Amino acid sequence: MKVSVGISARHVHLTEEHLKILFGEDALLEELKPLHQPAKFASTKTVTIQTKKAKFEHVRVLGPTRAYTQVEISRTDAYQLGIQPPIRESGDILNSAPITIVGPVGCISLNEGCILANRHIHITPKQMELYGLSGLNEVHVLVEGEKGGILNHVYLKIEEASYFELHLDTDDANAFGIHNGDVVTILEGNTNDF
Amino acid sequence: MKVSVGISARHVHLTEEHLKILFGEDALLEELKPLHQPAKFASTKTVTIQTKKAKFEHVRVLGPTRAYTQVEISRTDAYQLGIQPPIRESGDILNSAPITIVGPVGCISLNEGCILANRHIHITPKQMELYGLSGLNEVHVLVEGEKGGILNHVYLKIEEASYFELHLDTDDANAFGIHNGDVVTILEGNTNDF
Repeated sequence: MKVSVGISARHVHLTEEHLKILFGEDALLEELKPLHQPAKFASTKTVTIQTKKAKFEHVRVLGPTRAYTQVEISRTDAYQLGIQPPIRESGDILNSAPITIVGPVGCISLNEGCILANRHIHITPKQMELYGLSGLNEVHVLVEGEKGGILNHVYLKIEEASYFELHLDTDDANAFGIHNGDVVTILEGNTNDF
Repeated sequence: MKVSVGISARHVHLTEEHLKILFGEDALLEELKPLHQPAKFASTKTVTIQTKKAKFEHVRVLGPTRAYTQVEISRTDAYQLGIQPPIRESGDILNSAPITIVGPVGCISLNEGCILANRHIHITPKQMELYGLSGLNEVHVLVEGEKGGILNHVYLKIEEASYFELHLDTDDANAFGIHNGDVVTILEGNTNDF
């Protein structure tokens, strides 16, 4: 079974409240480019994320706003920033890493909110059934090529409104030589059995 | 079969001639820290590597000098620098990427010399036999953990004077959650058969 890959560069999700602090009372997230996932988009807004050790400018804010503010980075970014974010599912930010977000109007210093996103596949309940994945919560994925191999612990993110796609961070993409839109293979069984 | 991992950050190898251009006529490479590979060391010297798009300062020069000058970076570095180095064995620099090296005294602009090092294991001919690897030129390697998986195309670099060790770049290390000195498992057979 094949799945196409979407590579997530470092990005930020904001609550309505934090959006207003960073960009002003009247701020709205406007769409720059739609994402493959239904109703999700890259907004026209960017922020700076920083720690006392380093900062990254021009980090894209994704929309729409969410119930939580979350910064998703790679391990490579984390080393530069000098923080140790846990590997988490989106939204699971309890006791994750602290980070500061700076906008053109204001800034917020979060005690928690920075994570490394886990490897995951967006999939509908119906596709789970069609593809014979019912009952599984993770799979592993084969990548061809000179920098190829197998990615373990790829979580199945089952939602009705989903575009079938594997989301990886830039570390996984660069290590495996994967480009946006590349097609890889979902394997059955558990790699650790090999 | 287990092997420990050595992670290679971006680094530079220099010819005697280039060492003198960058650091002056009397320059010598002095040892800052020995590497695991016999007679190899991190020198006290660093350089800046740059392209028109970006630069990295404080890039370590490894010793001793070699018959060729070579810059080894990660794909993450390559994107920042705006170049597309090929994945190569050390020393195989024909038609590799151009890069400029700046030292405190002089600089050199190479038409070729920048590569992404392939995944490789340093091993002696005797160990090849002992470990039942005779006749193979590559293996694949299992990494445990939340960011685990399998690395394909790990080349066997067979030399008499070798310390048995898997060398990975920082992209592979960060994608797989590997730290310097971690121990991973060499698998038999070909992953693409799975």
